[in-house]
Amino acid sequence: MTLDEILSAFKSGQFDADRTGQMIRSTFFQDLGHSTLDNDRRRRNGAGEVIYGEHKTTAQILDLVTAMVDRGDNVLVTRTCEAVFDAVVKIVKQAEFHEQARLITCRVRPVTPASGTIAVVTAGTSDRGVAEEAALTAEFYGNPVARISDVGVAGIHRLLARLDVLREARVLIVVAGMEGALPSAVGGLVDKPVIAVPTSVGYGASFGGIAALLGMLNSCASGVSVVNIDNGFGAGYLASMMNRL
Amino acid sequence: MTLDEILSAFKSGQFDADRTGQMIRSTFFQDLGHSTLDNDRRRRNGAGEVIYGEHKTTAQILDLVTAMVDRGDNVLVTRTCEAVFDAVVKIVKQAEFHEQARLITCRVRPVTPASGTIAVVTAGTSDRGVAEEAALTAEFYGNPVARISDVGVAGIHRLLARLDVLREARVLIVVAGMEGALPSAVGGLVDKPVIAVPTSVGYGASFGGIAALLGMLNSCASGVSVVNIDNGFGAGYLASMMNRL
Amino acid sequence: MTLDEILSAFKSGQFDADRTGQMIRSTFFQDLGHSTLDNDRRRRNGAGEVIYGEHKTTAQILDLVTAMVDRGDNVLVTRTCEAVFDAVVKIVKQAEFHEQARLITCRVRPVTPASGTIAVVTAGTSDRGVAEEAALTAEFYGNPVARISDVGVAGIHRLLARLDVLREARVLIVVAGMEGALPSAVGGLVDKPVIAVPTSVGYGASFGGIAALLGMLNSCASGVSVVNIDNGFGAGYLASMMNRL
Amino acid sequence: MTLDEILSAFKSGQFDADRTGQMIRSTFFQDLGHSTLDNDRRRRNGAGEVIYGEHKTTAQILDLVTAMVDRGDNVLVTRTCEAVFDAVVKIVKQAEFHEQARLITCRVRPVTPASGTIAVVTAGTSDRGVAEEAALTAEFYGNPVARISDVGVAGIHRLLARLDVLREARVLIVVAGMEGALPSAVGGLVDKPVIAVPTSVGYGASFGGIAALLGMLNSCASGVSVVNIDNGFGAGYLASMMNRL
Amino acid sequence: MTLDEILSAFKSGQFDADRTGQMIRSTFFQDLGHSTLDNDRRRRNGAGEVIYGEHKTTAQILDLVTAMVDRGDNVLVTRTCEAVFDAVVKIVKQAEFHEQARLITCRVRPVTPASGTIAVVTAGTSDRGVAEEAALTAEFYGNPVARISDVGVAGIHRLLARLDVLREARVLIVVAGMEGALPSAVGGLVDKPVIAVPTSVGYGASFGGIAALLGMLNSCASGVSVVNIDNGFGAGYLASMMNRL
Amino acid sequence: MTLDEILSAFKSGQFDADRTGQMIRSTFFQDLGHSTLDNDRRRRNGAGEVIYGEHKTTAQILDLVTAMVDRGDNVLVTRTCEAVFDAVVKIVKQAEFHEQARLITCRVRPVTPASGTIAVVTAGTSDRGVAEEAALTAEFYGNPVARISDVGVAGIHRLLARLDVLREARVLIVVAGMEGALPSAVGGLVDKPVIAVPTSVGYGASFGGIAALLGMLNSCASGVSVVNIDNGFGAGYLASMMNRL
Amino acid sequence: MTLDEILSAFKSGQFDADRTGQMIRSTFFQDLGHSTLDNDRRRRNGAGEVIYGEHKTTAQILDLVTAMVDRGDNVLVTRTCEAVFDAVVKIVKQAEFHEQARLITCRVRPVTPASGTIAVVTAGTSDRGVAEEAALTAEFYGNPVARISDVGVAGIHRLLARLDVLREARVLIVVAGMEGALPSAVGGLVDKPVIAVPTSVGYGASFGGIAALLGMLNSCASGVSVVNIDNGFGAGYLASMMNRL
Amino acid sequence: MTLDEILSAFKSGQFDADRTGQMIRSTFFQDLGHSTLDNDRRRRNGAGEVIYGEHKTTAQILDLVTAMVDRGDNVLVTRTCEAVFDAVVKIVKQAEFHEQARLITCRVRPVTPASGTIAVVTAGTSDRGVAEEAALTAEFYGNPVARISDVGVAGIHRLLARLDVLREARVLIVVAGMEGALPSAVGGLVDKPVIAVPTSVGYGASFGGIAALLGMLNSCASGVSVVNIDNGFGAGYLASMMNRL
Repeated sequence: MTLDEILSAFKSGQFDADRTGQMIRSTFFQDLGHSTLDNDRRRRNGAGEVIYGEHKTTAQILDLVTAMVDRGDNVLVTRTCEAVFDAVVKIVKQAEFHEQARLITCRVRPVTPASGTIAVVTAGTSDRGVAEEAALTAEFYGNPVARISDVGVAGIHRLLARLDVLREARVLIVVAGMEGALPSAVGGLVDKPVIAVPTSVGYGASFGGIAALLGMLNSCASGVSVVNIDNGFGAGYLASMMNRL
Repeated sequence: MTLDEILSAFKSGQFDADRTGQMIRSTFFQDLGHSTLDNDRRRRNGAGEVIYGEHKTTAQILDLVTAMVDRGDNVLVTRTCEAVFDAVVKIVKQAEFHEQARLITCRVRPVTPASGTIAVVTAGTSDRGVAEEAALTAEFYGNPVARISDVGVAGIHRLLARLDVLREARVLIVVAGMEGALPSAVGGLVDKPVIAVPTSVGYGASFGGIAALLGMLNSCASGVSVVNIDNGFGAGYLASMMNRL
Repeated sequence: MTLDEILSAFKSGQFDADRTGQMIRSTFFQDLGHSTLDNDRRRRNGAGEVIYGEHKTTAQILDLVTAMVDRGDNVLVTRTCEAVFDAVVKIVKQAEFHEQARLITCRVRPVTPASGTIAVVTAGTSDRGVAEEAALTAEFYGNPVARISDVGVAGIHRLLARLDVLREARVLIVVAGMEGALPSAVGGLVDKPVIAVPTSVGYGASFGGIAALLGMLNSCASGVSVVNIDNGFGAGYLASMMNRL
Repeated sequence: MTLDEILSAFKSGQFDADRTGQMIRSTFFQDLGHSTLDNDRRRRNGAGEVIYGEHKTTAQILDLVTAMVDRGDNVLVTRTCEAVFDAVVKIVKQAEFHEQARLITCRVRPVTPASGTIAVVTAGTSDRGVAEEAALTAEFYGNPVARISDVGVAGIHRLLARLDVLREARVLIVVAGMEGALPSAVGGLVDKPVIAVPTSVGYGASFGGIAALLGMLNSCASGVSVVNIDNGFGAGYLASMMNRL
Repeated sequence: MTLDEILSAFKSGQFDADRTGQMIRSTFFQDLGHSTLDNDRRRRNGAGEVIYGEHKTTAQILDLVTAMVDRGDNVLVTRTCEAVFDAVVKIVKQAEFHEQARLITCRVRPVTPASGTIAVVTAGTSDRGVAEEAALTAEFYGNPVARISDVGVAGIHRLLARLDVLREARVLIVVAGMEGALPSAVGGLVDKPVIAVPTSVGYGASFGGIAALLGMLNSCASGVSVVNIDNGFGAGYLASMMNRL
Repeated sequence: MTLDEILSAFKSGQFDADRTGQMIRSTFFQDLGHSTLDNDRRRRNGAGEVIYGEHKTTAQILDLVTAMVDRGDNVLVTRTCEAVFDAVVKIVKQAEFHEQARLITCRVRPVTPASGTIAVVTAGTSDRGVAEEAALTAEFYGNPVARISDVGVAGIHRLLARLDVLREARVLIVVAGMEGALPSAVGGLVDKPVIAVPTSVGYGASFGGIAALLGMLNSCASGVSVVNIDNGFGAGYLASMMNRL
Repeated sequence: MTLDEILSAFKSGQFDADRTGQMIRSTFFQDLGHSTLDNDRRRRNGAGEVIYGEHKTTAQILDLVTAMVDRGDNVLVTRTCEAVFDAVVKIVKQAEFHEQARLITCRVRPVTPASGTIAVVTAGTSDRGVAEEAALTAEFYGNPVARISDVGVAGIHRLLARLDVLREARVLIVVAGMEGALPSAVGGLVDKPVIAVPTSVGYGASFGGIAALLGMLNSCASGVSVVNIDNGFGAGYLASMMNRL
Repeated sequence: MTLDEILSAFKSGQFDADRTGQMIRSTFFQDLGHSTLDNDRRRRNGAGEVIYGEHKTTAQILDLVTAMVDRGDNVLVTRTCEAVFDAVVKIVKQAEFHEQARLITCRVRPVTPASGTIAVVTAGTSDRGVAEEAALTAEFYGNPVARISDVGVAGIHRLLARLDVLREARVLIVVAGMEGALPSAVGGLVDKPVIAVPTSVGYGASFGGIAALLGMLNSCASGVSVVNIDNGFGAGYLASMMNRL
């Protein structure tokens, strides 16, 4: 029942005040034992729930995928692995596995394509796993993506040579480990928002991505904001949200 | 000998001053070589010792379980595994293993049930291992427990819909990883003490639970206190102590 | 209007669906420009709002005190100073200033006294400012308080000699800086909840209270939970909540 | 000379290859001794330079303001104080000082107004200095701003009551200290990008904003990104950039 | 050649000034390729070199053991394992392996026994590996050792009951993980130096021994000093040095 | 009453069991309101209490000094200032102020001199305040002290030239800031215990003494233990305890 | 095409302005899909690219090695393993594997030898893996290397005895874990630049090399600079650059 | 006496062995009470001692300046202030004060000029104090210095435009706060050693220079090494040492 229907039922006397209160509350979610499905999320946030694969059993993931596909939703599973995919593809033929990004996507209905392009720029080859998570997430939500790889600040000419691609993008995701300096350099070259993604790539005093994270938070370029270390999904999702503004 | 008996023996001349001093000291514990049993603990703390399973060999745990069951005590073993359980159940038939919570319980005598309810609330599915450790510990000490799962602040309606359950509880345990914001939200909705349990669930800048721990210590809601990261047992034990005030 | 009145107005057709939604939302708070008063807080949490004095101007504090006294509420201002008190006492005669604890209290109506006692225990003389903040807060909410000072673990006999007072308390607040070991010792001696308050007292590797905070979070005694560094108010408020269970 | 003119001069023989190289390089900036003006910035980034007031002398700031006003540019000086303003207003009559935000603005030419609204939401009254820095920056660049104050998660109804304002905004800036939980709650309620600004408001284990920063980076809500602690300017600038996409 | 012999050779003209300089330098050590033996150490420090087993291959350890036994020295290998022992015992029959402490000892000549006793006190059963490393090291250097186990501050009576043993010791080693409070309690009970050894035992906010380390550094008891986390060898060696003063 | 007298009174029937228990407890301390005097400390620890001056008012310090001098005790006040001294010297003529070390000493009775010497070695001139606190504390307890200043490892010949003094000492205190390397070098040259004192001298990545503290805890020389940052008193007290073994 | 050729083509009318711009950009790099080759690097930096082996697949490394050998370049692969070497040596006969340093070198053309010597000094045997990475890198670029091992500050005579070798070097690399004190001692003995390399060797409070890193950054000796933890390659490369000044 | 003279005196019988040993030791330093002068430093390190002004009294600095000028040495005092300068210039006319760099220089004898140039590059105007400390130190030791200011990576064209100056330098010092990215960019453009100096300029998550320090340690450019935060003197001294190789 929608909120309108509940209020109608109350007005007509079908529901008393108690029942009405209960019904209003229950519109928004469904208790499935191990999880509480947020049925209202698409209305509030513009996109359905995503399955975070880490710490979940294959059985739990299958339950969730099935439920979502049954509702006719496209499904995105993050931080997962091939073993889970093998189970998922048996029940959803359209499932695809993206190894480097550790994502499963199930497209069961078309997505309205976005017009602007999202650029995904990486500082080094080792950052590509996180970058692919971002790029594939953006594509999952219907955004065209331009990939520029291995253009860190120690060879700044490689970056400058792609200025045209950078400047054509409507939103930029910049992925870097080690000192995390690339978002500052990119942010200084464009007039569009830059989403900086620190990665845990590095050794010694990189401290699992802390050096890159701090570098990005202290960026001297304006227009740069930061997401969690290795959070490619978050960057891709946010970029899509911006691109559709 | 009790303290009274020792003093009597001294007064009657049976013990001299030296002996009396020694005896007073020895009432309180028993040296078992690898461990020092705290025989006085139930009198002081209202509950017997609990076996912390980590870093102990199966043989050591069996010794301790046997000794406690022989005294007629219920036994709780925390942070243990199925291999230890297989050994324990051979000597204590009543033993049960709780896999998700990594607990062994042996109930050899009844516990006086408490009247009030303890609510155990989790932010996400991944926090359930810690939450179950808390819930089962509370139940081990005779408290009714209400479980509410997967109601993190990013879908706040799911939490609000359970207000009746939250407000019926006498004590609340709130378990959360990542940003650890749920205790603040719950603490703002109830007039009962909230025990916040940060978990090590998360990645990147969650730093194994530090982000959640700091979030909970800085809670803007009053009535919230915090235990160690992943310390489900401590939360359950403390909640039971409060519930029986 | 109460929620019932709003629903009646809707049923009778006085309110349409839109208006009803708006009215339901507006029951709970009042926008005063620089602050949003939480009118519903006493119903939810069992106690009215407290004024956190830090970062607020004297004018803002006076506004808030006046508003609350006008509603007939007792007022507690934390982390304040004598200059603010001088302004407050001109408009509220009952105001009192507690210098060591940096609190202003205004009692304009009687509080139902609680029956159990709250013990406030400190490790050293330097911890007394924070301890008084806790003790006076507990007294503000109507709880009898027993103070035990300067009984740190380096002279454990001083603590043991007060065992009777410790064991008569229904809730214990233990305040300590430096290594923060006192809550573990106290927690091992009683069967009641211990609220540990780390203080920023110390030097060198105490790091402004981090050493004490970590010591308390890692307490080997069960029944201990922790609040923020120097958070005497939080401990006193929580202790009162527990004492009234 | 523009790049085209330089290449023409080279082709016509007016410049030799060496000179051409030099000229290409010098198009982009001007060396003023203590600073290097980035003349190309508006073309690249869509907005002129901003004067970061901290660590600069009044004389240096006056030089920069004069130069920029002479070029017909609006000027924004951040992290400044009344003494600097007194000097600036003598040479630029349009200068205004915003005390709480510590900003000087000089509007010498009109700005094209943006259509969408930017919401600036704060968790507590103490966060308003940073929030005003963000709001005034957004207004400086021509964006309508809606302010919602003091709606932290410990009184979640206050936030829910403003849902209409939150959902009308095209971009949201959420400012919070202490546990920094508000962006997660807001991010779960809207389908627009949320820029989270941690503040250094708090005490004890807030560690000057680290707790809030970590909380925001680990937000369980999608669509949230983070800027540096207390970086109101950065949030306002980025929000304007997004709002004009 | 001794320093005296070298100077004589120089005076007699056997060595010129250059040679003399070289010879003086070479008295003190021997270059063995992968290691530089410190031949002068026993004269300077009162004890020969100890082999730190971690990061060394079995072949390197065998070389060193052989060389030292050939000089007639007792040998102590720390942080080693059974596989290394199996190789060592083939060439040195007197070798013994101490599994819990991960030590190999080879006694090839008698040690003058010390008269005073060293007490090794542990907070919990899990700290015994480190405690045994300390105790066996002290015994290796000829000191009588008294072991007191599992007497942490949460059951302070267990500690008080051993006061006689504690007070008979000439030097005390106190080993504790978690909150590391035991050295403060012991230090308050005796008038002899206490060497505190933090262990990495614990979980969550113990951070691999940091909590215990900070607790010990901030001990409110005088007469306490601290060695590195898990450094049982260092504590045993230092205690022996003190005991022989 | 002594413990013997109390037990006699009990045996004779003068005290009943309850009274006896109370009396045993009260032997050990005296409650003075703001402090709890540890009357038993000299018996347990071999030295009376020391007044830690920080965070105490002049009035509190005067109370404590008076009480201790009345008992015929020498008094040591640490971390104090000239203003406090001016008040103390009015009531205790023998009081002396040591500015660099921030100590007040009152010698009202002679101390048995110790035979061995304590060497106090500093890395740089800036470390002398802490070093003097250590040296004067050691002298206060009757120990001869040899001072060696400004012999840091960057000019290792300066240290080697004092080998005779270093080797004559029975205990060594080594005080260093910055990288804290001096204790390792000294520890490698002597066969006596070295107490390392990190100081907060340094800048940048010295982090108020953390760099020196970590350096000392990780010392590759055996026989080195560490006290808190800037804890000159603790080092002097412990050295005296060792020197009197 | 070189820059000169491009400009000629433009002048002659062969290229229009657009084409010229594109060509200027494309001189500097080549996009190979998974990597962006920096063809201009040798001109700018004086040495070709090095292959950082970590996080790269064997296939990617083979591609890069082949490409570089085809251009006639010597190849250095760092942080690699024997399995990768087995694949490389099949296509490049000259490849050599250095197990301790985890390096592959392929010398296909001679290198001009440098005249000065680089000294590589280590504090302990365990630091040799990192030291060899530095030494072999320096040799790869044609520098003579003198190795001095196991001369940490706890046996300072071992270091002093090698003064002649130390002073003959033109550049010194000093590798140390634990407290990282050796660079200070060496820096005080020579008048040449010292490159300090902290290693992750140690335990407990060495925190994976942080203690050594901080020690080196705070060195009281002038002429010392620091590279990342375990960064032997960086030290060897920089030393070669200095040696060829 | 020189070492040769001492050995001669020994050979001739003027000195016995004991005396000879003493004399050899005393060649190297002079004990002045509050300091130990390192007379041998110029021979070992190629430059005399420098006076670190912080934590020293004006009287101590005057003593040291006088002594050094009396020996005919140029004097450099770092981290000092105008008040000290006023005292110094009264006794040494040649003294000069450099306010921004907080240095006093006294040139009493000429310095052999170096041929190569040292470039000092800064990211922002606020870094100039540290940069001037580096530049003036380099000039004090006779090196030509080229200053390039305010060329941070957010406006990378400003840096590229100075490529000629950068490439003409023999050694480069790069000074940056905030994210500390400039050394990576510079290091990628030149084939000479880069000394990176992190500054404490920044706010929020710059943590007093930690972000810049970590960024520089993790630089993806080879040829970069790092000195302590704000250590302009160390960078200038090291650059001079390299420039004179």
